[in-house]
Amino acid sequence: MSTADGPETTRTAVLLQPGTIQVQERPRPQPGPDEVLIQVTSVGVCGSDTHYYTHGRIGSYAVTAPLVLGHESAGVIVGVGEGVDPARAGQRVSIEPGVPCRQCEQCLSGRYNLCPDMVFHATPPVDGSLSEVIVHHHAFAHAVPDEVGDDAAAMVEPLSVALWACRKAAVGPGDRVLVTGAGPVGLLCAQVARVAGAAEVVVVDVNPHRLAVAAAHGATDTVDAREVSLDEWHGGRPAPHVLLECSGHPGSTLAGLQSLAPAGRAVLVGMGGDTLDLPLSLVQERELLVTGVFRYANTWPTAIALVANGQVRLDDLVTGHFRLDQTAEALTAAMDDPRAIKSMIHPHN
Amino acid sequence: MSTADGPETTRTAVLLQPGTIQVQERPRPQPGPDEVLIQVTSVGVCGSDTHYYTHGRIGSYAVTAPLVLGHESAGVIVGVGEGVDPARAGQRVSIEPGVPCRQCEQCLSGRYNLCPDMVFHATPPVDGSLSEVIVHHHAFAHAVPDEVGDDAAAMVEPLSVALWACRKAAVGPGDRVLVTGAGPVGLLCAQVARVAGAAEVVVVDVNPHRLAVAAAHGATDTVDAREVSLDEWHGGRPAPHVLLECSGHPGSTLAGLQSLAPAGRAVLVGMGGDTLDLPLSLVQERELLVTGVFRYANTWPTAIALVANGQVRLDDLVTGHFRLDQTAEALTAAMDDPRAIKSMIHPHN
Amino acid sequence: MSTADGPETTRTAVLLQPGTIQVQERPRPQPGPDEVLIQVTSVGVCGSDTHYYTHGRIGSYAVTAPLVLGHESAGVIVGVGEGVDPARAGQRVSIEPGVPCRQCEQCLSGRYNLCPDMVFHATPPVDGSLSEVIVHHHAFAHAVPDEVGDDAAAMVEPLSVALWACRKAAVGPGDRVLVTGAGPVGLLCAQVARVAGAAEVVVVDVNPHRLAVAAAHGATDTVDAREVSLDEWHGGRPAPHVLLECSGHPGSTLAGLQSLAPAGRAVLVGMGGDTLDLPLSLVQERELLVTGVFRYANTWPTAIALVANGQVRLDDLVTGHFRLDQTAEALTAAMDDPRAIKSMIHPHN
Amino acid sequence: MSTADGPETTRTAVLLQPGTIQVQERPRPQPGPDEVLIQVTSVGVCGSDTHYYTHGRIGSYAVTAPLVLGHESAGVIVGVGEGVDPARAGQRVSIEPGVPCRQCEQCLSGRYNLCPDMVFHATPPVDGSLSEVIVHHHAFAHAVPDEVGDDAAAMVEPLSVALWACRKAAVGPGDRVLVTGAGPVGLLCAQVARVAGAAEVVVVDVNPHRLAVAAAHGATDTVDAREVSLDEWHGGRPAPHVLLECSGHPGSTLAGLQSLAPAGRAVLVGMGGDTLDLPLSLVQERELLVTGVFRYANTWPTAIALVANGQVRLDDLVTGHFRLDQTAEALTAAMDDPRAIKSMIHPHN
Repeated sequence: MSTADGPETTRTAVLLQPGTIQVQERPRPQPGPDEVLIQVTSVGVCGSDTHYYTHGRIGSYAVTAPLVLGHESAGVIVGVGEGVDPARAGQRVSIEPGVPCRQCEQCLSGRYNLCPDMVFHATPPVDGSLSEVIVHHHAFAHAVPDEVGDDAAAMVEPLSVALWACRKAAVGPGDRVLVTGAGPVGLLCAQVARVAGAAEVVVVDVNPHRLAVAAAHGATDTVDAREVSLDEWHGGRPAPHVLLECSGHPGSTLAGLQSLAPAGRAVLVGMGGDTLDLPLSLVQERELLVTGVFRYANTWPTAIALVANGQVRLDDLVTGHFRLDQTAEALTAAMDDPRAIKSMIHPHN
Repeated sequence: MSTADGPETTRTAVLLQPGTIQVQERPRPQPGPDEVLIQVTSVGVCGSDTHYYTHGRIGSYAVTAPLVLGHESAGVIVGVGEGVDPARAGQRVSIEPGVPCRQCEQCLSGRYNLCPDMVFHATPPVDGSLSEVIVHHHAFAHAVPDEVGDDAAAMVEPLSVALWACRKAAVGPGDRVLVTGAGPVGLLCAQVARVAGAAEVVVVDVNPHRLAVAAAHGATDTVDAREVSLDEWHGGRPAPHVLLECSGHPGSTLAGLQSLAPAGRAVLVGMGGDTLDLPLSLVQERELLVTGVFRYANTWPTAIALVANGQVRLDDLVTGHFRLDQTAEALTAAMDDPRAIKSMIHPHN
Repeated sequence: MSTADGPETTRTAVLLQPGTIQVQERPRPQPGPDEVLIQVTSVGVCGSDTHYYTHGRIGSYAVTAPLVLGHESAGVIVGVGEGVDPARAGQRVSIEPGVPCRQCEQCLSGRYNLCPDMVFHATPPVDGSLSEVIVHHHAFAHAVPDEVGDDAAAMVEPLSVALWACRKAAVGPGDRVLVTGAGPVGLLCAQVARVAGAAEVVVVDVNPHRLAVAAAHGATDTVDAREVSLDEWHGGRPAPHVLLECSGHPGSTLAGLQSLAPAGRAVLVGMGGDTLDLPLSLVQERELLVTGVFRYANTWPTAIALVANGQVRLDDLVTGHFRLDQTAEALTAAMDDPRAIKSMIHPHN
Repeated sequence: MSTADGPETTRTAVLLQPGTIQVQERPRPQPGPDEVLIQVTSVGVCGSDTHYYTHGRIGSYAVTAPLVLGHESAGVIVGVGEGVDPARAGQRVSIEPGVPCRQCEQCLSGRYNLCPDMVFHATPPVDGSLSEVIVHHHAFAHAVPDEVGDDAAAMVEPLSVALWACRKAAVGPGDRVLVTGAGPVGLLCAQVARVAGAAEVVVVDVNPHRLAVAAAHGATDTVDAREVSLDEWHGGRPAPHVLLECSGHPGSTLAGLQSLAPAGRAVLVGMGGDTLDLPLSLVQERELLVTGVFRYANTWPTAIALVANGQVRLDDLVTGHFRLDQTAEALTAAMDDPRAIKSMIHPHN
């Protein structure tokens, strides 16, 4: 094991209970076999972080003990454990926050996101990355080239969600794509859909600022759902081939499904209620394909390449920068400001 | 044009209004360009025929004028129109009841079942096949070998529904398949799933007779839903990869979806209510693929081969034979007798 | 049938024998059922036209009677036959040059390019489009919007070849793509690969001018094969996922195959010798997928959308304009000038 | 770590040099973390074992030091290492002979057979399984039920090759499949193709005994290539959709490719020369898909299920049983006797 010299502790932002974040000094971790030690430079705030902060639970995952949030992260390798190439020290990395077991049926089949033994950042009881330094499995700490900045490297995580959704929808050249919901993931879905060759990318939301951002990032049309219904909007226009549902809103989902062309593909990305009123006869008569996504698998190399090449632009989606001791503020920025898109916390600086 | 000599009229069973079938003498049709004239030997009764007979409508399709029912049909070519090989006269055929436009986007893409201009037997206002002779496009009158009897040739239609469902579900060797509903289509889905290599085919129903038939036709296990819930049944067993939902029953559909393995595929075949309570979080967490089927495309050659080879057995699903003037009786046989599976009407004999 | 008034004859460029083109006055055709009459505005010259002109045959297709060349065509509808919407008169169209039978197994399965009864422009004995007016099946005369000029509308045909190759190769976001050969089809493959999200598009050729054009149209790197072998070039670089072989050159094909990553996909577009020395053990050890393309199917709507949106640029690949009476000159332009890429003939003007 | 008591050594058959096998007493291995200790009950002889025995090398893999052969193996778990459920002791298992790294791009994508760091039995310098006891990664020692005997459990390995080939070819209901070569893998390909629903499975070979075995195991037709060429045989018959090439013979491969239908799929399983004369224009005109296979991935659970259910029959392909000290005899049995198919060595008994 070789690590850079450093202090014996690391500063960590800990969620003690809903609404209470405390910065603590914790023992500095040491990289075990196959692990790397990473100085964390940027951590993006995700809606799930905010949800744990405000509600203390997401579905069956409850915060019952102190939890470190953060799963959109980038950093620099400052130490390597046994079995890891020492030359990786100094390498800038984007962190894939889930480490699967790599020996179950799902993992061996390439669907490691469905591994029942996944260990995933900031999902109780697994701590996330809001620390000065963390350890992580070396194969899930992906090197990034200079063209990808720290914030962009952290945003490879939400970009992966979008990439995975577009893969599931098999978005390709000439497709007409409808994106419902222009939060960070919806905005990234629009960008990736366009990168994948979609001829038309229509983004729907109720927030005009976000629609303007969408228009600058891949959307060919935007629809303000407060002014016109999807149904009216599509009247006379060719129907979309693909729905990327990123709002979690039942009404939008239903309107989106109803707008699809025969043989259309719908990917349900946004988390909403436990059930959805699926228009059964429509699904049958048009042979719609409906599926959901759970995180992602094998997206990092592609996502990094798309950012490095400039095919996807991430940096201008960052709307706020915060220190570790401003974590609480970062977590609520998007709730307080309709123009906020992605807050970035910098644990090490 | 060359046709066998024959009378100037043909006898036809006509649905005048719900509950009233009348056998009429109608002018004998003549085959136009690309058409063949077919003496109809066997017509299977489908649930949709019964539904039109009893209710007068299915969804938005309403019987507002006299309608000839029947879309599961076989016969013998007795005349050919312009552009058709005269050598086809005398050929025994299975009739694919829908003739698409063959020039729209759906047709040219191989999804002709989604053609908006489809002309489909026994779907108002298009007449079906319950006549002594009918005309049909030659490319949709498929030759059958001697190994395939008339009744089996008629049942290639429901077999096509099952084959299409299994294709959509990508059933393959080793798959564990759950079939909910053991009506004719469910029974055929079970057979086709086994033919496609499924290692386990579990059929669920509440009719013990039908479960016994399933056990004799491809099912490896049967579950009587009145005695044990799917949830209890699956406790401890490996989860199915595929759900072929053939009951149209919301409770069965939900239980079937909940039983699926990660990355499971569900094909909704049974027609039920307009909407279905889809378990959204389940669809996301397990990345289930959910789709519906609408008829079929490009199934006849395969279906005929499977029957000719004995890979699929159809004849012993026929539980009643009727003359044209017994059409009303045939249409209600399955309502009256829980042991009835498929009634066969023989217009020409 | 309604057609615009016009003269009783039409001028046509006819290949009488290898090396001899004659402009003839022929009877003006009339649109039959399902046909449209088209005034031809632009016809691109393809290598196969030049080959028929210089050699009189391509493989088993021999010019044994006078033949009209041209299969990359655009025009304006000036008359419609029975069964065609009269409102189409005046519509600008891109012509899909092959009309399949639409009722065989291949057609009904969506693979109409493999139809054994295909009728294809400028393939003996079927005449092509180098005439002032021609008739064509309405479903294969695709409307183009104003954003697509006449020359671009003609070039939708070679663009379709490229689109089809990229579909077969399943080019998608993040892929590394190698294109061998920078003729018109190679250049278009590079563009489409980039549109489909490829992170890296490397084009190889021996003509520096064409490599420069590639670099301006989607290629991220170019390799002059006279200066560096593919083997040397790839040393140390990540291996490509996809090979789009557009040179027809056995050495390039082999070098391209050898450079591929495990599970790589190779699409053989360029026509070369009758056989190819396939590196069998490589295909097995890396499980390479190798396939060829024959024309295209269902590409026009997508190709038109990509051009209309500006995702693909076609106009600046046109390097020469010719009148009908300059057809011979147009056919040999690319042989005479290494900077020539696509010659365009304008039959009607 | 817990292991059954046992002697301190284990008997092993070692290939010292081409033609020389010696049974040695070697130190009994101990299972490390994630490993199990397996008493080996059956080891099938593969052509590659025979090739190493007679020639000392296969391609670039050379036997330069003593090597233990054997990679088709079954046994009983008699000890478990750290991290393995102790309840597995006593479990009968089929051994998947290759253990991949589980963290490279190929592994994480589900293509672990293409892992560059694969450790595979009986591939120099990795020892195989011809020992009384061996250690192996627990996730690659697959439990088998009582319905699967020891010999069948060993033959899950060649069955996996066949299953993988059929997956690559996407064999499904109604397909017409041609298998060239009726060695063990060809015979298993025929069985699996039929299990997957193929309507026609034609097996070609020059050994009439093997053709008879094929006819008893899934083949619907057999062709003795000494009596009739494939070309003659197919004259007038519908062309196959799939070629599973298991002979490694260039002439058979070419004849097989030439017989394929448009859009046919060819999987090259048999190892032959380094290159193959691929009929390029045929591959293009018919858009044939050609690929090769390298071992298999994710096949064991399916293969075991197919055997346990009786869908695939393996036991009657075993034509000879041998003790460990008869290894040399077992390795040459198939060379000496044209009726021999699979020799089985029983290291522990």
